[in-house]
Amino acid sequence: MEALKQRVYEIMEVAGPDDRGSRAFDIFLITLISLNAVALIVGTVEEVNRLSPLAFNAFEVVSVATFTVEYALRVWCCTLDSRYSRPVRGRLRFMVSFVAIVDLLAILPFYLVLTPLLGLYDLDLRILRAVRLLARVARLGRYSSGVRTLLRVIEDKRSELVTVVLLLLVLLVMASSLMFFAEKEAQPDKFANIPQAMWWSIITLTTVGYGDVFPITVGGRIVAGVIAIVGIGLFALPAGILGSGFLEEIQRRTSAIRVCPHCGEEIHE
Amino acid sequence: MEALKQRVYEIMEVAGPDDRGSRAFDIFLITLISLNAVALIVGTVEEVNRLSPLAFNAFEVVSVATFTVEYALRVWCCTLDSRYSRPVRGRLRFMVSFVAIVDLLAILPFYLVLTPLLGLYDLDLRILRAVRLLARVARLGRYSSGVRTLLRVIEDKRSELVTVVLLLLVLLVMASSLMFFAEKEAQPDKFANIPQAMWWSIITLTTVGYGDVFPITVGGRIVAGVIAIVGIGLFALPAGILGSGFLEEIQRRTSAIRVCPHCGEEIHE
Amino acid sequence: MEALKQRVYEIMEVAGPDDRGSRAFDIFLITLISLNAVALIVGTVEEVNRLSPLAFNAFEVVSVATFTVEYALRVWCCTLDSRYSRPVRGRLRFMVSFVAIVDLLAILPFYLVLTPLLGLYDLDLRILRAVRLLARVARLGRYSSGVRTLLRVIEDKRSELVTVVLLLLVLLVMASSLMFFAEKEAQPDKFANIPQAMWWSIITLTTVGYGDVFPITVGGRIVAGVIAIVGIGLFALPAGILGSGFLEEIQRRTSAIRVCPHCGEEIHE
Amino acid sequence: MEALKQRVYEIMEVAGPDDRGSRAFDIFLITLISLNAVALIVGTVEEVNRLSPLAFNAFEVVSVATFTVEYALRVWCCTLDSRYSRPVRGRLRFMVSFVAIVDLLAILPFYLVLTPLLGLYDLDLRILRAVRLLARVARLGRYSSGVRTLLRVIEDKRSELVTVVLLLLVLLVMASSLMFFAEKEAQPDKFANIPQAMWWSIITLTTVGYGDVFPITVGGRIVAGVIAIVGIGLFALPAGILGSGFLEEIQRRTSAIRVCPHCGEEIHE
Repeated sequence: MEALKQRVYEIMEVAGPDDRGSRAFDIFLITLISLNAVALIVGTVEEVNRLSPLAFNAFEVVSVATFTVEYALRVWCCTLDSRYSRPVRGRLRFMVSFVAIVDLLAILPFYLVLTPLLGLYDLDLRILRAVRLLARVARLGRYSSGVRTLLRVIEDKRSELVTVVLLLLVLLVMASSLMFFAEKEAQPDKFANIPQAMWWSIITLTTVGYGDVFPITVGGRIVAGVIAIVGIGLFALPAGILGSGFLEEIQRRTSAIRVCPHCGEEIHE
Repeated sequence: MEALKQRVYEIMEVAGPDDRGSRAFDIFLITLISLNAVALIVGTVEEVNRLSPLAFNAFEVVSVATFTVEYALRVWCCTLDSRYSRPVRGRLRFMVSFVAIVDLLAILPFYLVLTPLLGLYDLDLRILRAVRLLARVARLGRYSSGVRTLLRVIEDKRSELVTVVLLLLVLLVMASSLMFFAEKEAQPDKFANIPQAMWWSIITLTTVGYGDVFPITVGGRIVAGVIAIVGIGLFALPAGILGSGFLEEIQRRTSAIRVCPHCGEEIHE
Repeated sequence: MEALKQRVYEIMEVAGPDDRGSRAFDIFLITLISLNAVALIVGTVEEVNRLSPLAFNAFEVVSVATFTVEYALRVWCCTLDSRYSRPVRGRLRFMVSFVAIVDLLAILPFYLVLTPLLGLYDLDLRILRAVRLLARVARLGRYSSGVRTLLRVIEDKRSELVTVVLLLLVLLVMASSLMFFAEKEAQPDKFANIPQAMWWSIITLTTVGYGDVFPITVGGRIVAGVIAIVGIGLFALPAGILGSGFLEEIQRRTSAIRVCPHCGEEIHE
Repeated sequence: MEALKQRVYEIMEVAGPDDRGSRAFDIFLITLISLNAVALIVGTVEEVNRLSPLAFNAFEVVSVATFTVEYALRVWCCTLDSRYSRPVRGRLRFMVSFVAIVDLLAILPFYLVLTPLLGLYDLDLRILRAVRLLARVARLGRYSSGVRTLLRVIEDKRSELVTVVLLLLVLLVMASSLMFFAEKEAQPDKFANIPQAMWWSIITLTTVGYGDVFPITVGGRIVAGVIAIVGIGLFALPAGILGSGFLEEIQRRTSAIRVCPHCGEEIHE
């Protein structure tokens, strides 16, 4: 029994390079979750859904069954991880870990919808469906080195990001207040209050510029012009910090030690 | 009396790591100003304000009272700072310092509005309210290391920024003039004069692109295309200078000590 | 015969600095293809085409004849390349190489259109014309060092780009799902399903922001604001990777020879 | 006479740090040209112009008189420059130098307009006015270190910029062709031909995104999405090259040799 548990545990972890069973299991799961995400996305297109709602439902049932078995096996095996080694408390602690909660959220909505006692309304169903889809895509992210790299970069640059985000908040409030006082007379429907002016600020400072809200008075345009030139640089900062952190992280992984071709010694640059 | 003044002065300065009283005072003030800023912002939403205008007014009165006491205490204590040590002249010099003026602007509008003699009109009230909000957010900025870092970066890169801003002005005038002469026939209402064409230039060169003004003639589109490709790089320069200065500043704070390659001793920059 | 074949082969390859015949041939071909591309582009303007459709047709016939002769000569000579040295199998392998297929696609559409047996419909004609134009511009790209540099950069940064593209896909799906669930009630025509919401996501995250689709509910705007600030940094990553790779590549070509700090000899990278 | 000529020549050149006469002359000219540019810009606002067209005209006459005298003096003195030392041929060569032509273009339009024989039409007048304004702003640029730095950067990075611009042209043609064939059925007025589709390409790839032209078919949106993600990185390249060249240039000018504070020797980094 312990040997089986050990083998199941090995298979379920992200595959090492030599373990063919573990690799096959990973590829199977990635394929299933990918198909699942595609089905959930394409299923929102009414024309497609109408073609064969039964097929979509059947696929959903099979997927949820597989994910449920997988979840149960993970809870069973988790005691082999030194962090969750105690039979009951360890398993409970595993179940409240971020990874396990995401896995649960990927299946739970299915069972909740089936339960008539809960008396779910339309809105709840919508949220449950959103949670289900996001959790499944997030599960997929676990296998993507890109998502893992991103999380490590955010962890790494946390203090810089917090500093910048606080600064952006101060600037956002200032820009929105100025525009509110400059434009509320001329466009009382679009700059009715400061929270509404914030929508203008974000869309302008990120340079998206939909064109649904923009200043029309001379004063508002001057304020907007100055804010645009000054503020865009600062709103590009989180992008720059994340971006440069990302590139550093990728280069760190691929930078083998360089050796001089003539004398064979290492070159530290 | 002097001992009390000394203690008040210590508490009011930005907290050192060991002084618990000073820390508590800072946290209290940050919380009060934050709540205040949120109240002023949310208070512009009519639906919210209508709920309990009294509560908003009461909170304003309490806040202004606190800020007034704080301001008075700061003026009283400032003589302990070597820059403002003389009783009268020192205090006056403190009161015209940037920091003190911002503090005053955060409370003064409240008293001005109460004074019927001033005969303030709607416009004045609007400006006073804007000043009050901006000054309070600016006060908050004093506690944010992000804002302080930003100010140091601007100071540091002043000469580069001035050079670039002058260049941008020349380019802005050229782009606006060209577009004015290219489009004024076809769109006399949108490109009626060069200052109006400048609005197009800024919104295009910052890549915001609201879509309220754009060229429709073939000539205007060719000019706009060339300007867009060439000019966007230059308008991204202030952003780049501020951004890289910001990253340098953050890294400098967290960087290891450098060693002189000649004598092997540490260099503190 | 072999000497003639050798000479033709030399002329057809991209010119070395000393071979005047080869250089002249290259310049002739670049000019012909450029004129061809311009003719195909300008030919889509109805007013221009109406002026002298005969001239456009005549130029097309001459061009295709030249390209056909060139293609035949290339197939004849390719056996001098060690990779395609066997008379029949080598030639066939040359004909399925990427470069040869692009050359074929630049002429084949002309002959297909002439063949009444194929019974081509309007749509096919349109695709054939697109293929013809793209293949000719791609042929031109072969002579541009910019395109070659770009292809080398993509090759070089392949693993980084794949990592980032997978990450972007996950984020794109998440952003689109969130906006679909937030906005579908309020704008059922613009956020009818998740694939439609992806159009919003791409146009927002690349900061293009046409303004044809944007959130109008408070919830949707909050989601959009957070997505915009966070996601724009990540969507700028492929740009950053390609850009920095491009600059590295250009600098590598113009950089001085490096010297190993251990043995003092040059390192050619 | 020669001594006077020598002094005039010294005064007219961009001022050295010690020459007070030359400095005063420079400041006078910068002020006059700046006021002139402002007058020409503000003069296009009809409301302002109507206030006192006479004042604007008088200021123009005074300015042109000053610039004419200055131009004559420059031509007289230029023989002191070793490049233009021969009395007639040297002066002619000076008059066709870029700087002298810009100076001439700043005054010539005024005299052309006065000449009734030329029979200038409205369009010509418009172009002459544009030339006059641009030439005066360009004259101002001569005194701005920013413009001089920019020109040196463009000179420095010429080969990179040419490479990138050719690549962008190839991509622009490909993007425009694809969108033309994808959208011309659905939007025959906006994607009537490839040159028109280029307007879409430029506005999208620079991320300006006015929203006057955008794809509405599913095929067009998929093409546009891929083009946007891939192409934006490449269109940001000229900006990146100019920007980094600019920063290098500024740092080169301000990087004094650093000295170790312990041993006093220079540190070359």
